[in-house]
Amino acid sequence: MKVNGTHYRSLWWDEDQSALQIIDQRWLPHDFRIQQVDTLRDFADAIVEMRVRGAPLIGATAAYGMALAARIDPSDAHLDEAFEYLDKTRPTAINLRWALNRCRTRLKTLPEDERAATALKLAHEISDEDVEINRRIGLNGLEIIRKIAATKQDGEPVRLLTHCNAGWIATVDWGTATSPMYHAHDAGIPIHVWVDETRPRNQGALTSWELGSHGIPHTYITDNAGGHLMQHGLVDMVIVGTDRTTRRGDVCNKIGTYLKALAARANDVPFYVALPSPTIDWTVDNGVVEIPIEERNEREVTHIQGLTAEDTIGQVQVTPPGTPGGNPAFDVTPNHLVTGLITERGVCEASAEGLAGLFPDLANLEKSA
Amino acid sequence: MKVNGTHYRSLWWDEDQSALQIIDQRWLPHDFRIQQVDTLRDFADAIVEMRVRGAPLIGATAAYGMALAARIDPSDAHLDEAFEYLDKTRPTAINLRWALNRCRTRLKTLPEDERAATALKLAHEISDEDVEINRRIGLNGLEIIRKIAATKQDGEPVRLLTHCNAGWIATVDWGTATSPMYHAHDAGIPIHVWVDETRPRNQGALTSWELGSHGIPHTYITDNAGGHLMQHGLVDMVIVGTDRTTRRGDVCNKIGTYLKALAARANDVPFYVALPSPTIDWTVDNGVVEIPIEERNEREVTHIQGLTAEDTIGQVQVTPPGTPGGNPAFDVTPNHLVTGLITERGVCEASAEGLAGLFPDLANLEKSA
Repeated sequence: MKVNGTHYRSLWWDEDQSALQIIDQRWLPHDFRIQQVDTLRDFADAIVEMRVRGAPLIGATAAYGMALAARIDPSDAHLDEAFEYLDKTRPTAINLRWALNRCRTRLKTLPEDERAATALKLAHEISDEDVEINRRIGLNGLEIIRKIAATKQDGEPVRLLTHCNAGWIATVDWGTATSPMYHAHDAGIPIHVWVDETRPRNQGALTSWELGSHGIPHTYITDNAGGHLMQHGLVDMVIVGTDRTTRRGDVCNKIGTYLKALAARANDVPFYVALPSPTIDWTVDNGVVEIPIEERNEREVTHIQGLTAEDTIGQVQVTPPGTPGGNPAFDVTPNHLVTGLITERGVCEASAEGLAGLFPDLANLEKSA
Repeated sequence: MKVNGTHYRSLWWDEDQSALQIIDQRWLPHDFRIQQVDTLRDFADAIVEMRVRGAPLIGATAAYGMALAARIDPSDAHLDEAFEYLDKTRPTAINLRWALNRCRTRLKTLPEDERAATALKLAHEISDEDVEINRRIGLNGLEIIRKIAATKQDGEPVRLLTHCNAGWIATVDWGTATSPMYHAHDAGIPIHVWVDETRPRNQGALTSWELGSHGIPHTYITDNAGGHLMQHGLVDMVIVGTDRTTRRGDVCNKIGTYLKALAARANDVPFYVALPSPTIDWTVDNGVVEIPIEERNEREVTHIQGLTAEDTIGQVQVTPPGTPGGNPAFDVTPNHLVTGLITERGVCEASAEGLAGLFPDLANLEKSA
């Protein structure tokens, strides 16, 4: 999508440098910094430190990491080593392992001297596929928004609420949860987005930056506010992304998503999850029981980053000395709280039947594996 | 309670200065500043700017404000003027109006030359009553904690979760939601408190400061985390305070309380509200429909205060330029989500019958009024 009028993807291959370029998202929304990623260590750091973030973008980044690994040493042993090294960078993002698996499996079928070129091509493919998947998610979500818009008086916006940043910078382009928003706005449907700030990392500021850049009306709210807004009929629909979806449609997403799903259910607000199929973990049924939740550094909770009075990017500590911080980074929303899953192939019920109906090829593949 | 080993109340009358002293809570937990309050404007500012905060403390502060007003000019007209001026400082805190009413009504029965002295005595009384009320709330809540403790293995803590700061600095002493915690800890029952940070103003940092000063184990978490913790059986009981409780037991408290109540219900975690009877608004039934929710300055949402790297207290802006912030400050938890109300007279069901059973004098008084 656009930044100051110029179209960007969240990562791109620089032919001249023969290297990957990323947006270092740690400085957004205050500063737009581009970084070249040159070593496997750079790739791992970029993922661990959340310079790149969002399940789909992590997947695409990891694919370029495998391309770099294949260029350095295309042997099976080195590909395995790179796989292990990159795989452990983020435990929750299922796309990470999906992309790594796809690259390694394909490359190992090839003679070593073809691997580097093919790996790079594969990374490009994975990126382009992500863009196309998200475009289709947007078109499918657009139909839901269009139906709500039809119930409104002329000019009254459809009021959406989203949590975290499942936006274009969390993917290669379009975003997942935001893609229906961009499509609706571009189709002339008036919308307004309540953006959860999404503590501890305040990714809502990224979503606000995205939406603002695209001219979409939005309001930044605390994570605490959504229940009250839904209780008072001020939200027509919730759309969030997901880091991992189980085969029965449980949704593991940024911490706090579950609370919004509970509030949506209690107030009859439709709660949709936008997801590209690589986010589905066909090996997991019960997300609450089976998905390990990443516990991140307590400093993310006790300190907050922003723009200082001196116009520099700095941190303030919120807590008193000696107070420990707890930082579970994700939670799981059970499928029964999810109105529907918006995928690149259409919208389905959050259930094993619903997902298998849209993705019989993938569901069966995994069953037979 | 204690600060660095010295016992403080959150406000006290300085006989030498013949003036009220408050803790300017805007600088906590980073700096412990005491301020003398000398003019009616000082009183209003102290409440509006949340130098003093918490429904009970606001009530006590307002009573001293009326005492000052009576000293300046004890006429009916001036008392009315002071009432109006102080009453509009915070729309949600029911104790504010309760204290103002109590003072004005009493003073108007007296000759003008007795009003100043009586008003000051009344403010002292209201403060002392608050301390005693909260002590009793603590003893009543202690019994609930004791029952949970009895189900634990030796040494396993009772795990409590609280939202906002309903602590001693939100009252004159003891706190409401924290009073059972202090009593349990002092009785040798091991507890651990999950402290919601409570955006936008991060009052969880105040609660952490209080608990840490008293030696109570606690962990500061984002508001988003509680649902996940309850889903995984890591919370035995939620205790929160309230700014206003309706006659049928709907609870208006800091924004986000409602989300925790939903999560508690969904996961069979008992959800208790600790409240002094002056917090009950006997004139309101349906809190969701009838209570106006204060919308506070958007800067509270877009900017966050804390300790800078230079050890000064500063703010950082989290949002990009041009993004508006929404800041509803309270929400209402309907009575059916509340397991019980912990009052100074005992614990009751959150219902009209429950409250009238404990407070027949007040319930009937209001009905006949």
